[in-house]
Amino acid sequence: MPHIALDSDEPGIRGLFQFSPETAAPMNALAEVLLRGDSTLSRGERELIAAYVSGLNECRFCTASHAAFAAAQLPEGMALVDQVRADPDAAPVSPKLRALLAIAAAVQRSGRDVTDKLVAAARAEGATDRELHHTVLIAAAFCMFNRYVDGLGTYAPDDPAGYDLAAQRILAHGYTTVPPAPGQQG
Amino acid sequence: MPHIALDSDEPGIRGLFQFSPETAAPMNALAEVLLRGDSTLSRGERELIAAYVSGLNECRFCTASHAAFAAAQLPEGMALVDQVRADPDAAPVSPKLRALLAIAAAVQRSGRDVTDKLVAAARAEGATDRELHHTVLIAAAFCMFNRYVDGLGTYAPDDPAGYDLAAQRILAHGYTTVPPAPGQQG
Repeated sequence: MPHIALDSDEPGIRGLFQFSPETAAPMNALAEVLLRGDSTLSRGERELIAAYVSGLNECRFCTASHAAFAAAQLPEGMALVDQVRADPDAAPVSPKLRALLAIAAAVQRSGRDVTDKLVAAARAEGATDRELHHTVLIAAAFCMFNRYVDGLGTYAPDDPAGYDLAAQRILAHGYTTVPPAPGQQG
Repeated sequence: MPHIALDSDEPGIRGLFQFSPETAAPMNALAEVLLRGDSTLSRGERELIAAYVSGLNECRFCTASHAAFAAAQLPEGMALVDQVRADPDAAPVSPKLRALLAIAAAVQRSGRDVTDKLVAAARAEGATDRELHHTVLIAAAFCMFNRYVDGLGTYAPDDPAGYDLAAQRILAHGYTTVPPAPGQQG
C-alpha cells in the first residue's frame, strides 16, 4: 500500500503524477527530452540505460516499464534487454554502448564513481560529449524516478500486459502531451 | 576538470545548464516547484532537506549551494544548517522536521528504505501526505542533481562568496526566469 493516500488506483509513478501534477509536468518534460529528444543515441538505447539503472536500484515498476519501452524500440526486443540486465559485459551491444552502460552503473552508485578511466574508455569507443552527458543524466534521473516510486511505496503490477500497453502509449504520444513553451529554457 | 568540454567556466550545475539548456529547463522548473512553490514546509526547511541530502551524497557544489540557500531563508541561519548536517537527531529543529529528515536520509540510500515505521513516526509529529510527498521527492531529486554535478566532474569553488551571491539570486528570481505555461501540467 502506498505511504500516502493517492487519488487513484494507478500504479507506480502514474498515481504520483495524478497526485502532484505540478511536479509531474517538469518530470515528464525531462523524460521526454532525455529519452525521446534529439540524440545520436537511439531511443531504444536510451530506454535500455533507463531500464538497466532501474534494475540496479531494484525498482520493480520502473524496471518493468522501461524494459518494455526499450524492447519496443530495439530490433532485438526484450531478449537484449534481459541480456543487458543480467550481464552488460557479455551482452551483444556495441562497445560504445557497453562503455556507456559502465558509466551509468557508476552514476547509480555515486556521481563520484565516474572516473577519468571510465570516460576515456567510452571516448575510445567513439562516445561524444553529448552522449556522455545524456548517459550521466539519464542514469542520474532514474536515481530520482526510482526513489520517488519506491520511497512512496507505490504498487507495481506483476502482469506484463500493462507495461506493454504503456509502451505503445509512450511510442505514440511520448512522455508529455503538451509541448514545452518556446521561451521556457535555461 | 569536467569530463566533457563545457562552453563556459561556470561552476557546478551552472556550466551543465549552459551546455544543455533543453534539460536545464525542466530541471529548473522542478526545483522551483519543489523548493519554492506552495507548501506547508517553509522554503528554508525545504532547502535544508536539499542541503542535508547533498551532504549525504558528498556533493560539494550542491551542499554549499543549498546550505547557503537554506541559511538565507532560515531565522537561525547557517548555524542550524551546520547542526543538521552534523547530527540531525541533536539539531534544534521541530520533531516533525526531524522525522522528515530521517525519511530523506532513507531515500538517499534507497527508495526501498522508506519504511512504514519512518512514515508513521513523521505522521505522529503532524506530517501530512503533501509534506511526506515533498520530502521524498526533494530527497530523490537531489539524488539526481548531485549525481549530475559529480558524474560529469564539474568544479566546486571553495570561496563561500559565490554561493552567497547565488543565494541572493535565488531569493530574488527563483530557479526559473520564465514561469511554466498555464497548460503545461500532467
